[in-house]
Amino acid sequence: MRTMVSLAGLAVLGAVLIGAAPAPQAPVKAPPTPQDILDAAPAAAWKDIAADDLVVMTLADGSSVVYQLAPRFAPVHVANIRQLVRSGYFDGAVILRVQDGYVVQWGRPDEDKTEAKGIEKHPPAEYEFTAKGTSLVPLPWPDSYAKTTGHIDGWPAASDGKSDWLVHCYGMIGVARDVAPDTGDSTQLYTVIGQAPRHLDRNLAVVGRVIKGMEFLTARPRGTGDLGFYKTDPERLKIVSAKMASDLPAGDRPALQVLDTHSGTFDRWLHAKANRSGAFFVRPAGALDICNALPPVRKAP
Amino acid sequence: MRTMVSLAGLAVLGAVLIGAAPAPQAPVKAPPTPQDILDAAPAAAWKDIAADDLVVMTLADGSSVVYQLAPRFAPVHVANIRQLVRSGYFDGAVILRVQDGYVVQWGRPDEDKTEAKGIEKHPPAEYEFTAKGTSLVPLPWPDSYAKTTGHIDGWPAASDGKSDWLVHCYGMIGVARDVAPDTGDSTQLYTVIGQAPRHLDRNLAVVGRVIKGMEFLTARPRGTGDLGFYKTDPERLKIVSAKMASDLPAGDRPALQVLDTHSGTFDRWLHAKANRSGAFFVRPAGALDICNALPPVRKAP
Repeated sequence: MRTMVSLAGLAVLGAVLIGAAPAPQAPVKAPPTPQDILDAAPAAAWKDIAADDLVVMTLADGSSVVYQLAPRFAPVHVANIRQLVRSGYFDGAVILRVQDGYVVQWGRPDEDKTEAKGIEKHPPAEYEFTAKGTSLVPLPWPDSYAKTTGHIDGWPAASDGKSDWLVHCYGMIGVARDVAPDTGDSTQLYTVIGQAPRHLDRNLAVVGRVIKGMEFLTARPRGTGDLGFYKTDPERLKIVSAKMASDLPAGDRPALQVLDTHSGTFDRWLHAKANRSGAFFVRPAGALDICNALPPVRKAP
Repeated sequence: MRTMVSLAGLAVLGAVLIGAAPAPQAPVKAPPTPQDILDAAPAAAWKDIAADDLVVMTLADGSSVVYQLAPRFAPVHVANIRQLVRSGYFDGAVILRVQDGYVVQWGRPDEDKTEAKGIEKHPPAEYEFTAKGTSLVPLPWPDSYAKTTGHIDGWPAASDGKSDWLVHCYGMIGVARDVAPDTGDSTQLYTVIGQAPRHLDRNLAVVGRVIKGMEFLTARPRGTGDLGFYKTDPERLKIVSAKMASDLPAGDRPALQVLDTHSGTFDRWLHAKANRSGAFFVRPAGALDICNALPPVRKAP
């Protein structure tokens, strides 16, 4: 937790290792920080995100939010989202709800009867899938909620050994639904903006993750209605357009990469995050929870 | 995750229990929700928060933020905060930093040389204290970071059996410092606005919790400088005044109560939160992490 002074201090003291045994013969070299590890990563450790998995949402305040879809986990919901985007359903939709410490939700208000054309109206739940943890690379630290947590191909996940599911971490996107489980058709989506509401895991379909422009959603004024819904239309920020990146001219597509969760770089980054060192940290945590271990994303160099 | 429709739906379906065995002879009664339990709590389950533990911060946009101090855990830092507030140090201070998913920090910019009068300039760290978990009421669920988590007199805490410490949950307040551990003097404070950054536990002094008006801090535009610092003065929202509630006229004091973490109501509330039921939830989590278990606060009736 650094002040401006400490930024300068860090530069000066970058080589000092607090808490390490003194090494009078040789100069002490601080272990690399998580950022050092990312900066030194080979190009092969970064994977391009397919343009057909990226949605670019332009908001009426001029900001732009990019989210990545998770077709492996929720194929029917993701097909719905692609169809809704391509049919223009979200062009002119709005931010409906901002509940502090919980979620931002967007779509069309209930009184808006715009037809959602060509989608599966009653998708299967897709809350979990029966991979039995086979492709999950586990974290070595316990979790409050699940037997195992870890990563499946770039996504934060959990497993009970029978089925796997994506977890409700900061920035993850889910499908809002009514009381009945089959009422979520992807016309309204939400993203998590506070402490991970893990009680929602396996109760709603998780379909993606905001990977750019999250701050334009989180900094919206909180709604003053029940559950943080905005009460009046002027409070609702308009979504000018939502486009599949694959439908944009090549030069306009966001070129984003995610750190390969099967790479050695990712493993080193995880362990450096769990064991912060350097001048500032007095005591490394020695652990990391899954929602503090979201795979880093960068602009392609 | 409810749409507006589902709010109406919930009212209608409030008595339906999904996932329970059918009970053809008797009507099924849904177990109480966390809110039901709070609504039914006896007055004795709520404890008044001492006015001398409350700071009322009025911001230049007209909003008001109230935070509670934790003198038991960080007595020297809390004494500094009371002194800084009473000497007017924070009147005219600003919000310095909003880093998305991490912290909001306030105080005076480094170039502002206003003297902090009458404080202990080099307080002890107060990162942890050696209560050995004796007064901690443990949660029965595992934690990624600590041997035990639970509550100590209304505060979220952790223990390794040798010492206890307050944890960096959403809304918890810590003391910003420079690189050296004894450089935090409470002139700059921060609060957590995203997934709990538990790697900060035992690396910084935790001194309190925002209990009212959190949304006025979290909805600020994110700073565009390093670590979310605002680059220019006009971006920094001014703190018009900070007052100890105990110094306000009796009628102007915020009358707030916290649910007694030693009460049966609290215990029932925790378990209802860990095992959500009712029409909406398909599968209860069966667990709760410490940062989803912050004691509820209410206005005194």
